[in-house]
Amino acid sequence: MTPAEAWDLLAVSPVAVLATIDGEGHPHLVPFVFVALSGRRLVSAVDEKPKRSRELRRLENIRRDPRVTVLAHHYEADWSKLWWVRAEGTATVREVPPDTAEDSLRGRYPEYGAAELGPWIVIDVESITGWKAG
Amino acid sequence: MTPAEAWDLLAVSPVAVLATIDGEGHPHLVPFVFVALSGRRLVSAVDEKPKRSRELRRLENIRRDPRVTVLAHHYEADWSKLWWVRAEGTATVREVPPDTAEDSLRGRYPEYGAAELGPWIVIDVESITGWKAG
Repeated sequence: MTPAEAWDLLAVSPVAVLATIDGEGHPHLVPFVFVALSGRRLVSAVDEKPKRSRELRRLENIRRDPRVTVLAHHYEADWSKLWWVRAEGTATVREVPPDTAEDSLRGRYPEYGAAELGPWIVIDVESITGWKAG
Repeated sequence: MTPAEAWDLLAVSPVAVLATIDGEGHPHLVPFVFVALSGRRLVSAVDEKPKRSRELRRLENIRRDPRVTVLAHHYEADWSKLWWVRAEGTATVREVPPDTAEDSLRGRYPEYGAAELGPWIVIDVESITGWKAG
């Protein structure tokens, strides 16, 4: 899979896993929803749901060490259908989203409803690779 | 979700994401299949498929730093159905699998067919947490 194909597959994945590094050098993982913007940028938001308030370790981690890895993948019992995409990049935490990101995110995920969104995580992808069975 | 509930959910998940730390301290992610054994132990195998031979970074990483994190999760457009389980533990790479692990793994994943399996990754889970919507 070329990097362009991997990016296209990541961009249409509704969910991926975000890995950050905690203060002791352990990997920390959360599933996350996002939008893919031009320039190989991913944007995600923290919302106000209870699960989120317990999950702010990712923000602390990014502020300490901005290197993140993202994995989207597809699994089914028939392994000829498997694929994964892995992106490595640099993340920043922002109080204000990049232009159009909030509308894109709300449009993609109606479940946000009227929830206030933020802070924002912006990931600039520096390398991307992928694999598809068959 | 209690740790026992989280473990039970992880144990029946057919796939999860394994995070290791590379030599530069970056998180490395791969999807992986596994069996859950008693004592909160996860066992996974490398097989001989082409994707695996390209994916041995996880083994190098574990040999250098055995601290790993595993995430299993469920996503759908209806966010009232979301859940995730995250386990942190210590991994070892072994040439010989723990008793019963190979039969359990082959029984769980018929797609292995006649593939030779190994080396083996054994993860002793030290902490586990989970979240379920609603």
